[in-house]
Parts: sequence; C-alpha cells; structure tokens
Amino acid sequence: MSAYENFLSELEGLEVISSPTQVAKLSEDYFRFSPILTPILENKVGDLVLRPKTEAEVIKIAQGCVNHRIPLTVRGAGTGNYGQCVPMHGGIILDTSRMQSVKWIRAGAACVEAGVKLGALDKKAQEIGWESRMVPSTFRSATVGGFIAGGSGGIGSVLYGQLRDRGNLRSARVITLEDTVRVIDLRGDDVQKVNHAYGTNGIITELEIPLAPAYPWAECIVAFKEFEMAAKFGQALGNADGIIKKMISVHAHPIPSFFTALKSYVPDQSHCALVLVSESDLEAFKSLVRSYQGEICYEKSAQVASKGLTLVEFSWNHTTLHARTVDTSLTYLQSIFLDLDAVMEMYRHFGDEVMMHLEFIRMGGKVFPAAIQVVRFTTSDRLNEIIKYHEDRGVLIANPHTYLLEDGGMKTVNQEQLDFKRLVDPYGLMNVGKMRSFL
Amino acid sequence: MSAYENFLSELEGLEVISSPTQVAKLSEDYFRFSPILTPILENKVGDLVLRPKTEAEVIKIAQGCVNHRIPLTVRGAGTGNYGQCVPMHGGIILDTSRMQSVKWIRAGAACVEAGVKLGALDKKAQEIGWESRMVPSTFRSATVGGFIAGGSGGIGSVLYGQLRDRGNLRSARVITLEDTVRVIDLRGDDVQKVNHAYGTNGIITELEIPLAPAYPWAECIVAFKEFEMAAKFGQALGNADGIIKKMISVHAHPIPSFFTALKSYVPDQSHCALVLVSESDLEAFKSLVRSYQGEICYEKSAQVASKGLTLVEFSWNHTTLHARTVDTSLTYLQSIFLDLDAVMEMYRHFGDEVMMHLEFIRMGGKVFPAAIQVVRFTTSDRLNEIIKYHEDRGVLIANPHTYLLEDGGMKTVNQEQLDFKRLVDPYGLMNVGKMRSFL
Repeated sequence: MSAYENFLSELEGLEVISSPTQVAKLSEDYFRFSPILTPILENKVGDLVLRPKTEAEVIKIAQGCVNHRIPLTVRGAGTGNYGQCVPMHGGIILDTSRMQSVKWIRAGAACVEAGVKLGALDKKAQEIGWESRMVPSTFRSATVGGFIAGGSGGIGSVLYGQLRDRGNLRSARVITLEDTVRVIDLRGDDVQKVNHAYGTNGIITELEIPLAPAYPWAECIVAFKEFEMAAKFGQALGNADGIIKKMISVHAHPIPSFFTALKSYVPDQSHCALVLVSESDLEAFKSLVRSYQGEICYEKSAQVASKGLTLVEFSWNHTTLHARTVDTSLTYLQSIFLDLDAVMEMYRHFGDEVMMHLEFIRMGGKVFPAAIQVVRFTTSDRLNEIIKYHEDRGVLIANPHTYLLEDGGMKTVNQEQLDFKRLVDPYGLMNVGKMRSFL
Repeated sequence: MSAYENFLSELEGLEVISSPTQVAKLSEDYFRFSPILTPILENKVGDLVLRPKTEAEVIKIAQGCVNHRIPLTVRGAGTGNYGQCVPMHGGIILDTSRMQSVKWIRAGAACVEAGVKLGALDKKAQEIGWESRMVPSTFRSATVGGFIAGGSGGIGSVLYGQLRDRGNLRSARVITLEDTVRVIDLRGDDVQKVNHAYGTNGIITELEIPLAPAYPWAECIVAFKEFEMAAKFGQALGNADGIIKKMISVHAHPIPSFFTALKSYVPDQSHCALVLVSESDLEAFKSLVRSYQGEICYEKSAQVASKGLTLVEFSWNHTTLHARTVDTSLTYLQSIFLDLDAVMEMYRHFGDEVMMHLEFIRMGGKVFPAAIQVVRFTTSDRLNEIIKYHEDRGVLIANPHTYLLEDGGMKTVNQEQLDFKRLVDPYGLMNVGKMRSFL
C-alpha cells in the first residue's frame, strides 16, 4: 500500500475503502453468469476503492492517477455481466455511487450525475409525467453512468431503439486522464466517443438523457401452447403501432418454471410472453392476444405493478439470474435474429440445450427479435460450437463471454472511441486491458 | 318537397336547411381536386340538410329515413377528397357539425361526439398533456367522425400507424337504419365494421379514441440540393427511433414554390422536408440533418408554431390544395412505395409530370414512404397510364379518383363491413352507391 501513500495524501477528505473483503466485492460485477469469464475475472481485484461525492473530487482522483501512473477503473452499481468494471490490473476503483444528484429534470430530458440510480430517476421523473426511455432489468440499483458506459438497451427499446441511437444520449461530461486533467463536455454526435466504451476513455461524471412520456404500464403474462405462437405474438405486438408497449419478453418452456414468484400463474408446459402495455391500450392488446390464441394468466394494473413485483425483473438478464438460481450450470447467449424463421430453426435444433428467450427491440426503425437464450453449459468448445452454428446461419451473436469491448456486440474497432482514448488517456490507465485495439 | 312533409312533421324542433344554395354547398367535399370526380359529383345534391344536436335527434332522423325510405348521407366538415359525403341519390344529408360535445377526456383516451373538430379536441387534450395520435392536415375544421369514417391516417402516422391499426379506434357508437332503429356500441375489433366505411353502414354518433402524449413539436424546413438526399433523409429520420417526430413531409422541386407563405424560406431550386420534431430532440435532429447535407432554412419553436402558421397545413393533401391554388390543372395521386428505389425510379421517369411528395408513415411496425404526388393532368387515359405504370412496378396506388369505397385504397370487398351493412341498413339507404359490393 505504500505506493498509494503519496497519492492518498493528495486526496484528503475522500471516502477510501481499503478493507480487502469490500474491495474484492467492489471489484466484481455479474460476470459469474459466464463460466468462461468466471475463472478469468474472479481473482481480479483493485487496490483501493474511492467514492467521490463531487466532480471536483473526481478531478483530484484523475490527476492523482495520472501523476502516479495508477490504473483507474470506474464502477457504477456493478450490475454489468461482462466484467465491464472489473480491474484487470489492480489500481484504483472509482465508485460513482455517491454522485447521486439530479441536476435538473424537465419534460423530455434530465441531467444527472453518473451515480444516479435509474429507478430513483424514474420515480422523480414520473412525478412530472416522464421516465427514462429505456432501463435495464437492474434499474433499481443500476446507475445511469453504468448503463450508458456498459449497456446497450433494455426495457423501452421496443419503442425507442438502442442507447447508441441518435437522441438517446444528449450529452456526457467527461474527465480526462491527460497530464493536466481536463473536463470535456460532449454533445450531439460527439457523445458516441464514450457511449458504450466501458469507461476506457474518460470518467463520465454527468449525463443529459432524454425522457419518455410515462404511460401507466399494465403488466400481463400471456400463456401459449406453442412456442411459435408466442414468438409470432411477440413480433405482432412489436409491429402493432396502435398498441403502446414498453416490454415484450417471450420465454420458451421450461424458462417460466424458473420464475419462482410467477410460475404458479403460468399453465404447466406453457410458453409465455411478459408484457408491459399502456393501460389505455389494454382492450386492443387483448384482441391481439385472442387472435394469437394466447391466454392472459396474470394481469396487474399500473398502480399495483408499480408497488410490488414487476415483470421487468424477470426480463432481459434477470431471466438468466432466475434460471441460475435454480441451476448454476445455466448460462446465456445474446443474439439478434433477423426474423422468426431463424428463431424457430434454432429453437427446434437445440431443444432444451438453448432455451429460447426473446426480447423484442427496435433497431433502425424496425422491431426485431433479440434473444438472451438460457444455455445449458457443458464445455467451452460446445459453447463456441453453439455460437458458430448461429453465426453460420446469419444470427448476430453479441458474445457475453468476453470482457473485451470489441469482441462483444461491436465486432469491429470503433475508431472514434479509440482516437478519443488516445487523446484523453495517453498513459493507458483507464479500465486497462478492456479495449482490444488498445492492448 | 311534398315527399318530405310527413317526414319533417315527425322531426319538430330540428335544424333544417333547405336553401338550395346551402344544400348544394353542404353536398360537396373537396372532390374538385380530381378532374375525374368533378364531372361525376358536381351536380349531386341532397334534398335537405338536417343538423341534429343530440343522439336522440339522430335516432329520430334515422327512423324517419327508414319509415319513408329516404336516402341518408352523413357529413362531417366535408374535408374529404373522394366524395365520401356526396349524396349520389339525393335524400337527407345528416350534418354532424352540431354534435360537438367532448364527453370525457383523460390520460390516453377521449370520448367525443362525432362532430367534434380535431383541432378543438387537441386544444382540450393538450391542457392535460395529451393530443390526438393522428390528424389530417384539415384538423382545424375536420371532425373526428369524418376522419374515422373517411380518412386513413395523417400527421402522427409516422409514430402510431394507421387509423385501421388495432388500438387507434377504441369504440364507435352507431345508429342503425333497421325497421326499428337501434343503437349499437362497437368495441375492440368490432370497430372495424364501421372504420373507414364512408358512413355506408350506420350513423356514428360517438367515438372513443386513444390519445398520444403531446410533445412540444418544433417545426423545421430542411432544404436539400438533391431530391434523393431529401428522400433518404426522410427515411432515415423515420427510422431514427431516438428522435421523436410527428410529421416527415418531403417535397421535390417545384412543389415548395407552390407554398406562397413558405417559399421565401426555401432556397431556389431546392427540395425540402417539412418536419415536426420533439423540441427536446432538436439537437439530435440537427446532427441527422447535417449528416444528410441538409440545411435548416426555417425553424419555429413549439410555442411559436402553435400560435400561427403551421407546417401541418402544407403537408398531406394541403400540399395539393396549395399546388391547385397556383394551377388548377394540377391533381394528385396517393401511393405507397415499398422502398426509396421505387420512389427514385418514378421521380426520374415522370419528371415534372408527377411531382414527388412523400409522407413517411408507419405500417406494420416499419416506416414507409407513402406519397401524395402532385400530377399535371392532361387526360383520363394518361392518368390511368400513370397509375398502371406505378402498379406494374409494385407501387400500391390508393386511387383518389374514385368515389367507390372498395376502389380506393382497399382494393377488395371488406366482408365484415358488407355484412354489417346488410344487417344495419337493410333498405340500402345509407350513402347510396358508394359501396361497390352493395350497388
């Protein structure tokens, strides 16, 4: 720890966490969902965790890291799944959880510090009739900064597309790790420099994000006898422009049986769709359900749903979480299918080895079935075989079993992000080892 | 008139218009946009116009028409373009313009009498943060009932699709013309029986329609040197899920020169897009404009736009209206293009004979370039040749030069609407001659 003595002496008054147990805990995210990542990441720990409360403190930490050439990894709530915030080479963990100020909020937009939790923001925004355009299933604890730096979309993406889409991030305020630390305000298309860059190229301290009108969202589970019908229903609901919905999460049997709190509602052997739909469109929604021979087996009004259990916490990677609660040998994949034919082909080919879990999302103006399949893991080779089988048939796999930025969904080097990294992190101190093009 | 004496004696207290000039005026819509329809429809007049103020009065009129076997044609504001409300065989014109009561209005939905004007409804709805999901360019005078009975979509369709889409009409209350007149409440999928049926199968007295969140809509004109770029920009904006917009109306040169109140803003020889975009997405919108080498030549804040001139009144068939103000030999077409390649092919093939005017709308979850081309009319044969040229190349033409329900956009008999007509109008008294399958 002596290497940190000078460093810390410059940072008086800052909250420092040095207890090895706590530091180890704050070096993790949910990478244990992946049997590939677990052995790689489970012993990677930082040296110290710092919890700044203000941007001024962040600047001091950044300057200290530059001066002493200490690696720096930024962390939100640690709800990521690919080790986005795991320090590969020790150093400082900058935990943003104390930066919880909502700077302003108005119809259509909000400005927040990076550590603001999405759930807390939405509670505030809903008071004036608005809410986040999209949230992860971990909205209760996940931070806005973490979601922007490490996420790509979520509940709401069926209406508003992906975080990377123009308009879904208005501005980001970034602290550099140059010789003399700077504050840079990125606006317009420039925000893409740090959007989904895992915090490799600047410390995001503040974000301006757009808001969506807060419909009262009713929550329904629709059961189907045939999986194909469930999938077709999901796509049809996605395409139904006159029915406003926030989430269409479709699960093949036996996934519903993993949902302890829900499984009593879902008829045995059934497949199901978990849906958030605008309460005032419920009647039209039910007509659509009937036309696909679905059966509504669970229905909560927006008011009831907002108070207790929410289906949001069974969607996206919460599905995987529930599956792993039942059987820790289960893991997952992330895919984008171009159509339902490909979904059905994989569904039939893999059977229970790759259990189909669809999340319908909008991409480039059209609704596609994305998937977060629950996979029965046997070996790495078999997992890679499964991935290859999908890719050979035109399914895009955003591999969640890599901690490298480019090897997940992006596939290629993002030159703009790399250039920005070279500019703002000349000593390569930020989230070391995560950007393949900067290894 | 003696045939009406008994009839009228049963309808005491009702507003009756019998002045031939007024009746002739109230027998028209905007069919003069079509040189084909004009000679067919211009001498078609009703015998009397009745203006009920309540549903009870409507029921009395309906019963009278049945008892005396008098043809009945329902009329809203007469802003249609295909003679939807033109009485082909005289009789009674039921003018709904006195039925202006907004029964209730709440977040997400409103219930109105058929004669409520869309503009008036929106003013009221906006007070609580909502507005109609879609309106015609004639929103100031057009009625909700007329829009549902005679329209198909409009400004807002780029977000919410078509009026026929599930969810975009919640209920319709209909008076029949059976021996004993009945009131029927249609809900759910049953509303399709009377949706876009030209009032051939029941008198709509009341409607429940969904509402959309009322964003503050900024209004912009974007100029482009090349038409292709304008069209591509329109599609890209349509596909941009993170930029909320209500209208994307693209006009090839020389159409902008027809817009007297706007042409000074648009650079000479330019093509342009008229856009309503959420004020809080303006920054992202401008980035998109730049990436298509567009130039914003007109920009009004939502507040300013809501008070005076609105671009809405230059879009959809208001475009044709402005064009015909300059040159009455101009007419129009209505088309749906499956992609921009087909748009460009037609643009290049026809040159100034068919001036391209695109309205981007969502159909089945995807944004398509619909078109309301401005056409230099020469002969009927040539017009049919133009239509055939489009259809042969896969462009769907919703022919606006026919007054027959099935020969416009629908192309086929709507069995559900026909069955409902047989049920509720056994004597074939309603909007006689408009439903081809019931001639």
